[in-house]
Amino acid sequence: MDELAGTADAISEGRRRNWGRWGDGDECGLANLLTSERTADAARLVRSGRVFNLALPLDERSLPVLPGRPTPQHYLRRTGTDYAAGVKRRGGFESMDDVILLATHGATHMDALAHVGDEGLLFNDTPIATVRANGARKLGIDKCPPLVGRGVLLDLCRHMNVPRLDGGQVVTRQMLEDCATAQGTPVTPGTIVLVRTGWLSVFTDEGSESFFAAEPGIGMDAARWLAERDVVAVGLDNYAVEVIPTESGIPAPVHRYLIRDCGMYLMELFNLDELAEAGAHEFMFVAAPLGIVGGLGSPLTPLAIT
Amino acid sequence: MDELAGTADAISEGRRRNWGRWGDGDECGLANLLTSERTADAARLVRSGRVFNLALPLDERSLPVLPGRPTPQHYLRRTGTDYAAGVKRRGGFESMDDVILLATHGATHMDALAHVGDEGLLFNDTPIATVRANGARKLGIDKCPPLVGRGVLLDLCRHMNVPRLDGGQVVTRQMLEDCATAQGTPVTPGTIVLVRTGWLSVFTDEGSESFFAAEPGIGMDAARWLAERDVVAVGLDNYAVEVIPTESGIPAPVHRYLIRDCGMYLMELFNLDELAEAGAHEFMFVAAPLGIVGGLGSPLTPLAIT
Amino acid sequence: MDELAGTADAISEGRRRNWGRWGDGDECGLANLLTSERTADAARLVRSGRVFNLALPLDERSLPVLPGRPTPQHYLRRTGTDYAAGVKRRGGFESMDDVILLATHGATHMDALAHVGDEGLLFNDTPIATVRANGARKLGIDKCPPLVGRGVLLDLCRHMNVPRLDGGQVVTRQMLEDCATAQGTPVTPGTIVLVRTGWLSVFTDEGSESFFAAEPGIGMDAARWLAERDVVAVGLDNYAVEVIPTESGIPAPVHRYLIRDCGMYLMELFNLDELAEAGAHEFMFVAAPLGIVGGLGSPLTPLAIT
Amino acid sequence: MDELAGTADAISEGRRRNWGRWGDGDECGLANLLTSERTADAARLVRSGRVFNLALPLDERSLPVLPGRPTPQHYLRRTGTDYAAGVKRRGGFESMDDVILLATHGATHMDALAHVGDEGLLFNDTPIATVRANGARKLGIDKCPPLVGRGVLLDLCRHMNVPRLDGGQVVTRQMLEDCATAQGTPVTPGTIVLVRTGWLSVFTDEGSESFFAAEPGIGMDAARWLAERDVVAVGLDNYAVEVIPTESGIPAPVHRYLIRDCGMYLMELFNLDELAEAGAHEFMFVAAPLGIVGGLGSPLTPLAIT
Repeated sequence: MDELAGTADAISEGRRRNWGRWGDGDECGLANLLTSERTADAARLVRSGRVFNLALPLDERSLPVLPGRPTPQHYLRRTGTDYAAGVKRRGGFESMDDVILLATHGATHMDALAHVGDEGLLFNDTPIATVRANGARKLGIDKCPPLVGRGVLLDLCRHMNVPRLDGGQVVTRQMLEDCATAQGTPVTPGTIVLVRTGWLSVFTDEGSESFFAAEPGIGMDAARWLAERDVVAVGLDNYAVEVIPTESGIPAPVHRYLIRDCGMYLMELFNLDELAEAGAHEFMFVAAPLGIVGGLGSPLTPLAIT
Repeated sequence: MDELAGTADAISEGRRRNWGRWGDGDECGLANLLTSERTADAARLVRSGRVFNLALPLDERSLPVLPGRPTPQHYLRRTGTDYAAGVKRRGGFESMDDVILLATHGATHMDALAHVGDEGLLFNDTPIATVRANGARKLGIDKCPPLVGRGVLLDLCRHMNVPRLDGGQVVTRQMLEDCATAQGTPVTPGTIVLVRTGWLSVFTDEGSESFFAAEPGIGMDAARWLAERDVVAVGLDNYAVEVIPTESGIPAPVHRYLIRDCGMYLMELFNLDELAEAGAHEFMFVAAPLGIVGGLGSPLTPLAIT
Repeated sequence: MDELAGTADAISEGRRRNWGRWGDGDECGLANLLTSERTADAARLVRSGRVFNLALPLDERSLPVLPGRPTPQHYLRRTGTDYAAGVKRRGGFESMDDVILLATHGATHMDALAHVGDEGLLFNDTPIATVRANGARKLGIDKCPPLVGRGVLLDLCRHMNVPRLDGGQVVTRQMLEDCATAQGTPVTPGTIVLVRTGWLSVFTDEGSESFFAAEPGIGMDAARWLAERDVVAVGLDNYAVEVIPTESGIPAPVHRYLIRDCGMYLMELFNLDELAEAGAHEFMFVAAPLGIVGGLGSPLTPLAIT
Repeated sequence: MDELAGTADAISEGRRRNWGRWGDGDECGLANLLTSERTADAARLVRSGRVFNLALPLDERSLPVLPGRPTPQHYLRRTGTDYAAGVKRRGGFESMDDVILLATHGATHMDALAHVGDEGLLFNDTPIATVRANGARKLGIDKCPPLVGRGVLLDLCRHMNVPRLDGGQVVTRQMLEDCATAQGTPVTPGTIVLVRTGWLSVFTDEGSESFFAAEPGIGMDAARWLAERDVVAVGLDNYAVEVIPTESGIPAPVHRYLIRDCGMYLMELFNLDELAEAGAHEFMFVAAPLGIVGGLGSPLTPLAIT
């Protein structure tokens, strides 16, 4: 009880910020703001036609895997070497296919609104017991529409002139605000915000142990700033969006606030380097999760189109 | 040998149509035509901002599963019912995630160029033995860029005024040509073509046995028409793009011709009904496969944006 | 409530038959009767040294798979064809291995005591909520000791002179009693009982749809007979041990009675044909489940040694 | 070529030791020696009726997992917490089951004869290309009969009065010979030999990195000693049976010699501590692999019965 009280305190007010805002039965949360007008506006941001793929390659070497989660697995049901070694098919047809086993949160991905609860409730007053062994009956990733809208990259590394932020460094409201202003890319309702911390380079440079030991990320006040601006989704180049260790020491306050209280979509393990190198700070953003019925997240190949 | 000769005959000339066209080491095939100019043009097709999700829901009930392929599987590592029943986490944090196991060709998906070979070779003179148990070293789905370009829906059902084509009915060059003309949507180089046959309704109405027993689809001459027009990718609302049984009785000539000889991307199990109902025949098409390293295909949430 | 009352009625008295019998914390149930004396006695049943393997081959063709359960899957991480096609390892070492994905109840298997509950409780007054997404904290298959003891085959087909019993045919107390007497193999405490109904031949002859449509099996009174005799485990050549449809129409009364109330081990999909052909009615029985921590069952290669 | 020559040299003569010994089509190798006479003799070794389970618990915490292999995975299709939280079934029936995904060599296990080849051949002159993506057509684990026979534990720790042998320490012919003599347990044809090195404690004490860095194990000369005595199977409390690093520096000579040349069964990750504590050096050994069709190994619950 004390702990829960402490948590509520860490998150403070607004615990049910967007509940009921789009009706009692709503399962889309802030994705409701992706109106066709906004989508059409976003398409008009495309000038050069360059497409940036923000996903990490999907194999066990390219992805940091949180201990306890299964590594991505890829198995072939028939190989080319089988044919080369003499396996025959009718008419000489040589066909090969495969299966994948993935933790939905183990690659570049989007969290479903059903991913995180608090005090027994998910977003929009939904009982946590709706998430059963056979999937989330409410707020699953299949309820999330394709995210197509205006994207803004807040390149904190460039703004702060550092190769990367430090593990445990809090991304503050002020940092986001200043960076958006300096870039000339205001964060308006319905925007998808990507924040570059440079943290992914820790995985590349030092391996997954260092990568998961801590991370720079969104603090509680920055989370409120995102919520106040009606941001639809926020994606980072770290593994948890929020700063680790958290400011209060209480686990995952930003997850609890943004997903459960606000209905915002969190996206992780984004590769933002090419986008940053190209200086692309505003773009058409497209991310279409797999429609895993009752899924708690989805691997993703998010795109920024400039 | 006779059979192979027969196959070659069925496919006739042009067996190496696009080999070497983009260099000896090319692994992208016709996706090379998705230049930024074409992508920028495609974005200009967006007017209303409406987004159509062309994927089927991803669960074992919503998807026809070819016998022998594993059904999509979805397992939770922690449920909401666990928490409701008293499982505790530090600080009251309630977090749930999950894993999926999928046949890459068992949902709405795109074939990798490594999916199909013939006479020991894949596209661009690539030995089939490059496809090993640990994946395709060449032409894997990770080599396919996100497909962002002009999409055209050839709605054969509407054009021919039938609810659906028949199992085994050949989609001909003439049908595609006439439909494109009637719709006023010419098929130009770099286009992604979607063809609506109505066949998916057989699964919904009669189950998977009828669905897989036969299907209407692209015949060899229609395949040549697509190749001559430098179509990048072709997606259908059936399970194999091509007509089953095939015209010649030889297995999969269209797969062998379009994938292996031409480097075209085949996409299957598309839901084209909403798009057709809306009368949307030209649109910005976006399909971003998961970057499964060495993968022979990828599940997909393809989008048409109008 | 009415339904639950009905169930209780169908199962009638003795709902907590063996609860507390081996202590409040007991998680082994009737396997407690497998004392070393009984094991030593069982070993003395070995005369000829012939070993009968009672398992079905483990692949998707050899096993009837209940709709909804995943088929057994087997994937290689490296193939011999890879080496034949030129893959090299240091020192020329050619090594191959593989993974399997199995429903623990989808092959010849043993149920854990945690497999089945009723009215919120598992065997020995254990709350059903102890079975969480990450496994059964109590009564998992890892708590079941290897079953090594005296086995008796009650060959009902031979006894009743039929190739197989009919779907829906109830195996009665009298049938078991008479068969045991006729065979001269009394069922004494600590025995493992195998009952041959011949039903497996329906799968071989007619496929899995017929196989799962119904089955002959243990009725409630026969279940009580087994419990009264302190049988440790009961294995059949059908998919559910008990008769389907059940006598009362209420689902799975025998499962609920034998597993939950009595702590008996149910074993299914046994191949008893060779054993029957050899006329082996009494033997040393050995079945050692995999120690899947928190598992609800285990695939099994049960042996009868004569 | 030089490397292969070197390998052949390291293994020296006898490269086809048991090829053809039980016929050209034989796929059982030394398990052919498990005659019913020997099985009956083994059963007579049972005195006290005590059963030792030699398997490690099957979960990701209890098992050292070789980097690159998937960890054992266990997923529930329905939980007890689901029922506790209100999921209902017809008639109040509460049933739960689960699936497992295992590397066949990632737990206490037995290698199939198809597991290891050399110079393109498996045991008994079998081309390595018979091992295809869909499994081994020859020498799969499904061809291995249940191993039921006389078991001998050579407890080197006790014999040498050390808690455990060192990483890289070669178990020699002399050590095996002396230990067998001292114990009064001669190794005769048809015996299953278990060798205790104590190495498993490194995993428990120091974790998997140290465990896999090296290990004490069978050297080439000890391997020949085992082969000369017509041992059927050899099991150790390490991860590879043979000493790591190998004596010659060439990878896996003992695997190649014993599996491929001799048709002997290698078994790994055995827990021999309880057996050793009980001073049980001779016993009835029972290990029944899962009949994975075309499998390259099988998880195992091996038993020693005294």
